Amino acid sequence: MRIEIIGIEGLPIIEEGDDLAALILEALNSQGNPLRNGDVVVLSHVIVSRAEGRTVDLSSVEPSEIALRYAEFTGKDPRLVEVVLSDSRAIRRMAPGVLITETWQGFVCANSGVDKSNVPGEEVVALLPEDPDGSARAFRDRVRELAGIEVAAIVCDTHGRGHRDGEVNVAVGASGFNVIRDRRGEHDLFGYELKVKRTAVADELAAAAELAIGQADEGIPAAIIRGYAYEPSESASALELVRPRGMDLFI
Amino acid sequence: MRIEIIGIEGLPIIEEGDDLAALILEALNSQGNPLRNGDVVVLSHVIVSRAEGRTVDLSSVEPSEIALRYAEFTGKDPRLVEVVLSDSRAIRRMAPGVLITETWQGFVCANSGVDKSNVPGEEVVALLPEDPDGSARAFRDRVRELAGIEVAAIVCDTHGRGHRDGEVNVAVGASGFNVIRDRRGEHDLFGYELKVKRTAVADELAAAAELAIGQADEGIPAAIIRGYAYEPSESASALELVRPRGMDLFI
Repeated sequence: MRIEIIGIEGLPIIEEGDDLAALILEALNSQGNPLRNGDVVVLSHVIVSRAEGRTVDLSSVEPSEIALRYAEFTGKDPRLVEVVLSDSRAIRRMAPGVLITETWQGFVCANSGVDKSNVPGEEVVALLPEDPDGSARAFRDRVRELAGIEVAAIVCDTHGRGHRDGEVNVAVGASGFNVIRDRRGEHDLFGYELKVKRTAVADELAAAAELAIGQADEGIPAAIIRGYAYEPSESASALELVRPRGMDLFI
Repeated sequence: MRIEIIGIEGLPIIEEGDDLAALILEALNSQGNPLRNGDVVVLSHVIVSRAEGRTVDLSSVEPSEIALRYAEFTGKDPRLVEVVLSDSRAIRRMAPGVLITETWQGFVCANSGVDKSNVPGEEVVALLPEDPDGSARAFRDRVRELAGIEVAAIVCDTHGRGHRDGEVNVAVGASGFNVIRDRRGEHDLFGYELKVKRTAVADELAAAAELAIGQADEGIPAAIIRGYAYEPSESASALELVRPRGMDLFI
């Protein structure tokens, strides 16, 4: 049992309209690791957002009254707060330095997932892709079209966690595989039937990918995971990984 | 950038007193992948607990009055509840089917981390190791002693999460490396200084390992991660990954 995590090197700076699938196929060919059937491609949301034009130049943002007030309370840039509020459907928690929202797609994360790092332009920020599952699906479709290769795809972002410190990479978009592997009813080594075992494999794949993505100072924005036998599915959505409101357990 | 996740195959059923380091060195030799300097060894807590004798036969447990009452409310086996309460310092959440505790080591998890699966004996359960960091340290020391090899070690368990569904593998014990990689002050590709970037690498390594551990029906209870440049540290503790009470953000 051997699984590889391969960072995708040598990608250009991604700009609006770029064909991510073509660029990644080419980069993997150049590094002598052509993409294969069954690979999982994990894409940082920031390059997906940049390719899709989901960026905002803060210097063009006029903060509203309410953004100004919340910015003062949280100690954040009012223009950033304006963008964060515009991309949210509800606020989960506000405190000095903290602004956790539910995005209109349904994710619960800091600052609606709006990111400053790895975005060119002094005051440009990246939003989450409009439909991260759709972005993952479009990437797979394009890879199939260009190279005849069938892959699974994940759009990832780093998130804080409830009762654990530090951030981990998680899946905010997914296509082509079951994001949760439900093992209830399977038996362990000793014949015991598993009663509680629903593994969030999409998040584990995203976390594994960040060992290559996050580690590199050369700016590796994507990775492939090779040798993991995912369960194919055409109906997968990363939103299955978000607990419905009121179902939060660890609070 | 290439990182490998290698499942450790062919281990015997682990019993109390077994020398895990010796068995793992031997298993890796047999599968043609001898352990190397810089590998991260990720051990399922269940084999560590079994080797340390941290198991309880429920048929020997006499539930107390309070365990009987909570068992009725949660719908759990009263003897299991007795064991869970005995291994906790506080209860975080109780509901039908749900019993989330703070263990006396400081972890917040379902059933104090007490596990039925992959434990031989019809009614035998595994507790968390008494000192999972110490178990990881002892494993590293023994590997050094037997083979002169310097590794990092993680004791892992699968945990549920606050606002995300499904379980992921996390580190409950760690030794030899910084469990959080603090990147604040580093600069991104475009010169932007990272303000919030503390990556829980120990949890990402544990999650990556479960892609090999959890996938195998052959009962792979441990994996190595090769090619990840961890930051060496002799003072690491997996408890750094647990947010102090009152600091929970995503609630």
